[in-house]
Amino acid sequence: MRYAVIGTGGIGGYYGGKLARSDRDVHFLLHTDYDYVRCNGLQVDSCDGSFHLDNVNAYTSTADMPAVDVVIVGLKTTNNHLLPSLLRPLLDKADDGRKPVVLLIQNGIGVEADVQRMLPDARLMAGLAFICSAKRGPGHIDHQCYGHINLGNYSVGSDDDAKVVADDMQAAGITARMVDYEEARWRKAVWNMPFNGMTVALGAQTDQLLKHPATRALIRRQMLEVIHAANACGVTAITEEFADQMIRNTDEMTPYSPSMKLDYDFHRPMEIEYLYSRPLAMAREAGAPMVSLEMLEAELRFLQEKYLFV
Amino acid sequence: MRYAVIGTGGIGGYYGGKLARSDRDVHFLLHTDYDYVRCNGLQVDSCDGSFHLDNVNAYTSTADMPAVDVVIVGLKTTNNHLLPSLLRPLLDKADDGRKPVVLLIQNGIGVEADVQRMLPDARLMAGLAFICSAKRGPGHIDHQCYGHINLGNYSVGSDDDAKVVADDMQAAGITARMVDYEEARWRKAVWNMPFNGMTVALGAQTDQLLKHPATRALIRRQMLEVIHAANACGVTAITEEFADQMIRNTDEMTPYSPSMKLDYDFHRPMEIEYLYSRPLAMAREAGAPMVSLEMLEAELRFLQEKYLFV
Repeated sequence: MRYAVIGTGGIGGYYGGKLARSDRDVHFLLHTDYDYVRCNGLQVDSCDGSFHLDNVNAYTSTADMPAVDVVIVGLKTTNNHLLPSLLRPLLDKADDGRKPVVLLIQNGIGVEADVQRMLPDARLMAGLAFICSAKRGPGHIDHQCYGHINLGNYSVGSDDDAKVVADDMQAAGITARMVDYEEARWRKAVWNMPFNGMTVALGAQTDQLLKHPATRALIRRQMLEVIHAANACGVTAITEEFADQMIRNTDEMTPYSPSMKLDYDFHRPMEIEYLYSRPLAMAREAGAPMVSLEMLEAELRFLQEKYLFV
Repeated sequence: MRYAVIGTGGIGGYYGGKLARSDRDVHFLLHTDYDYVRCNGLQVDSCDGSFHLDNVNAYTSTADMPAVDVVIVGLKTTNNHLLPSLLRPLLDKADDGRKPVVLLIQNGIGVEADVQRMLPDARLMAGLAFICSAKRGPGHIDHQCYGHINLGNYSVGSDDDAKVVADDMQAAGITARMVDYEEARWRKAVWNMPFNGMTVALGAQTDQLLKHPATRALIRRQMLEVIHAANACGVTAITEEFADQMIRNTDEMTPYSPSMKLDYDFHRPMEIEYLYSRPLAMAREAGAPMVSLEMLEAELRFLQEKYLFV
């Protein structure tokens, strides 16, 4: 199995790095870090055991890569407008009928539909990563905790082809399992939609939000909004009990800044579109508007513009 | 007509000062500024014409004041727990049946009901001030703009007695008119509830909130929540058109920081109870919950505690 990794950051660098360490043939797309990684390799500091890759197949363009079986996309969704030009060469290199599987390890709801619209011939899988990992410097990934990933078949065609990716990841020491695509996206949204935005809006970490009774109740109410929306959208396996379970889990986590909070703090664009706007529109259309999360979206859009213009 | 002023700040200092300048007999309760005002008088810088009061009847206790016809309360509602001890001497000084009228120039909904519970013999009026005015230093009031006041009879008994206060204010150069108590409180809430909290939550002035399409739409939605709640509470004279009118008016105002934003910025307690919690509870009970304003209340309670503990 040959892999391409697009977006060699906290996500792509970690999962791609683990696969390369287990002797899969992995080809990394790099941008500013290209020269550094070519000379010095890739360092992955990890709570599960740090490692270094000496000889990294590094590229500045996907056109220079060989044909691959799987493309791992670890970009933020705010860069998804780049995907047609990044993926097209890899799709065109493949033999007919054996287009590579494109694994989108990205946040939010609606991602696959949009990528599919841009690239109708792509065979898409969704990756929902539960991980704290970030790029700390050139060629230097810092994986702090967690790391398991849920994989969903969106348009791969055969479930077996999707399963091969999960098996490869398992063999590389990653906890990876196949899940129902739509249910997994909505389940993750139950946590993501309240916590990503509220930590930005109130400048606080998860533990502080759960400590104050007013915001604890608000977070729970927002989780119920997501669950009711999921139910209205036909995903009926998620029940209200899941909200309490998510809150209990978060109580036991170390204080945490979700990715949107990090993006905001470092003045990067936030993933408002797929974390909020798309699921909010779907919920409203299904007759189950998420009113307080709609308010949160408006606050985030305001805050995003406010800091980009100061 | 003899007046007592409790809370000689932006509100009490301005309205009491105007009455004193028009030769009403006004007695001011002072706290930290007592010595300064006794020696130097009271300076009112005003967009309508500045003036100075040389000889101010200043007190550190209402027990030392003479019997009065009207008590103007200009305290923040966060200090209303002090009202029983502050008002009791003035109520007890009065002849039977001629208890003074207590004019509460305060923000929010539910204020009069609570004060009435604490002081069943008080004859209450509501004052809804449309004014930008603040204390700038000892004995120094800075009245920047607006200044008109709507007065509502809550439990004065005779409307004529309430009307006398409005007439006195008019004679002192204040635009004052009698209005329906309940309708006036809800009308003011249509503006207050969105703008007070949102300027705090997003660290922005009124003009910035109206400039961004996301927050402009959110503010309008919140105004509609208040209007629907008012309607459900029996105040049917306020229609949806009022929201658009309020937004147009605010577009034409100079950029503005509402009182809650000033309280937050200067690390003073915010008037969350009467500006949010009470009307939110009334709305929910009437079957018209104000969902996005409930979220705003939770954010404000969190932010209040966050800054009080840093």
